[in-house]
Amino acid sequence: MENEEKDYLEHCIALLEERGVHVEDIADCARYLQSSYYTSLKSEELISSVYKVLSKREVQFAIMTAIALDKAAEEHLLADKELESLLLSDAPLYGVDEVLAYGICNTYGSIALTNFGYIDKDKYGIISKLNAAGKNTGHCNTFIDDIVGAIAAAAASHFAHNSEEEEE
Amino acid sequence: MENEEKDYLEHCIALLEERGVHVEDIADCARYLQSSYYTSLKSEELISSVYKVLSKREVQFAIMTAIALDKAAEEHLLADKELESLLLSDAPLYGVDEVLAYGICNTYGSIALTNFGYIDKDKYGIISKLNAAGKNTGHCNTFIDDIVGAIAAAAASHFAHNSEEEEE
Amino acid sequence: MENEEKDYLEHCIALLEERGVHVEDIADCARYLQSSYYTSLKSEELISSVYKVLSKREVQFAIMTAIALDKAAEEHLLADKELESLLLSDAPLYGVDEVLAYGICNTYGSIALTNFGYIDKDKYGIISKLNAAGKNTGHCNTFIDDIVGAIAAAAASHFAHNSEEEEE
Amino acid sequence: MENEEKDYLEHCIALLEERGVHVEDIADCARYLQSSYYTSLKSEELISSVYKVLSKREVQFAIMTAIALDKAAEEHLLADKELESLLLSDAPLYGVDEVLAYGICNTYGSIALTNFGYIDKDKYGIISKLNAAGKNTGHCNTFIDDIVGAIAAAAASHFAHNSEEEEE
Repeated sequence: MENEEKDYLEHCIALLEERGVHVEDIADCARYLQSSYYTSLKSEELISSVYKVLSKREVQFAIMTAIALDKAAEEHLLADKELESLLLSDAPLYGVDEVLAYGICNTYGSIALTNFGYIDKDKYGIISKLNAAGKNTGHCNTFIDDIVGAIAAAAASHFAHNSEEEEE
Repeated sequence: MENEEKDYLEHCIALLEERGVHVEDIADCARYLQSSYYTSLKSEELISSVYKVLSKREVQFAIMTAIALDKAAEEHLLADKELESLLLSDAPLYGVDEVLAYGICNTYGSIALTNFGYIDKDKYGIISKLNAAGKNTGHCNTFIDDIVGAIAAAAASHFAHNSEEEEE
Repeated sequence: MENEEKDYLEHCIALLEERGVHVEDIADCARYLQSSYYTSLKSEELISSVYKVLSKREVQFAIMTAIALDKAAEEHLLADKELESLLLSDAPLYGVDEVLAYGICNTYGSIALTNFGYIDKDKYGIISKLNAAGKNTGHCNTFIDDIVGAIAAAAASHFAHNSEEEEE
Repeated sequence: MENEEKDYLEHCIALLEERGVHVEDIADCARYLQSSYYTSLKSEELISSVYKVLSKREVQFAIMTAIALDKAAEEHLLADKELESLLLSDAPLYGVDEVLAYGICNTYGSIALTNFGYIDKDKYGIISKLNAAGKNTGHCNTFIDDIVGAIAAAAASHFAHNSEEEEE
């Protein structure tokens, strides 16, 4: 179990950066999700919630898996050419990208899932950029846009609950 | 197992009507969810998808349970007054209403869940009406607005997939 | 939002006690779930994990809702007699009881869900007692046996992860 | 959307065969899950339920993704060596394999999830073989054992419901 005791936080932040995603971009999406409740909220106030989410091992494993699939597709490393084609075209009914995203949201409760559904359809900020850059461009962002939406949704939910003292 | 072989479709439609929700209202929400993909879609085209969803036993059981909770709260039948107070105020972090809704969406795949998250936050049509009418008015719509959103989300997802021949 | 800031821990423990469930019973189920990994584990070592789970607001709301439904069914307070009949017979395909249970497990990650599935079928300890006492006896345990299984599964999962420092 | 209209059933059966899994093995797991309810049930009676499950597009996409990850790990094609190490050791808290499996089970309702939890812990038949053959052997079965369990759980649930006429 040695490799499970490792902390993959730095590793995951580096993976996200490599794919053009900064912690600040995710915090901005989380702020957007909370903006109807707290109108003068600033992105910086969401940064610590994003870090909390990124510190969860289940989230780290989802990030690593998602980015590995996007990269393997765009580098043509997948033996399954049917799957490669689905991933490179970001096929709308593929759905496994959302399944991975729900794995992240679920651990933050039912409100996180609702937040994710909203931003996944609304495609705010970095999510819109990732989505546009990854459709039939040779570049594959099929998984990462959903993962970023899920982290933002979980962070917004964490922020909404943070008057509570409870920890896991 | 006798009572499981029963068909609760008529029963559920009557329960929904009694709470002010018509099949057409749900079809209109489903149409709204599909309107960015099919701009000239009419509500009537979604009616059969709504009926498909309403015919599923898991959906029927969720509808019956949700409406029973709303009614028991507004008629002050719940022995647990803490729960009654949460339900009558439609407390935003309660979350069990969304959990029931996900039970419906899940059976229609990951896209249904995304649809639900969107309409639950956007509150289109009948969902907006139910939500407004059920907050601190003595009338309780805590569960039904989410259930209606979930049926609409599932119907929209069913419609999107319906070029397929597969059945359950 | 005032009622959301309340802590329902004492309230939920009292509700569980009233239905014949003690924290120790749940800890014993959690121990059973971990016993293949830690053969000499004692129930007492799981008590603090059970309290952690019971302290989560999402869990408290699920407990309150579940017990309210069981009680309303056995006291014949539900206007919907079809639903009452399903609940009093603990109809095997009803499924909404498991949906509520998943709402608890989900917040503890995918391993908690697997644990729940196992103990829900295996019916160890108090779960077996509750299940037997609530089928066509006039007494309704349709929801509570699943809720207890979910709390035990979540506590076992919390225990398995507790070398980690992370909190929510 | 052309590639979405394709039917991947043959493709998925070929992928499973290549990994040592036959439709009959999955049907035997499904039979095992139903054996406490129908004691004289034969595997052959579950074959058509397994085919029903395998015909669902969401299931096909999950199978393709799962097998692609197992193969990429064992062929050392993943750039992320941390992820490779987690997959090759089948790290128990990784959890993304179960998340993919739930994506399959969810579409068959809450009873399918319970079935999965049971067989994932009990490891009957082919699941036990896959699990044993894929831990630190150079061969990677981290995803496929869970996917097979999920298909069996869904098929068992489909069989249990099949007195119903409803289709999706």
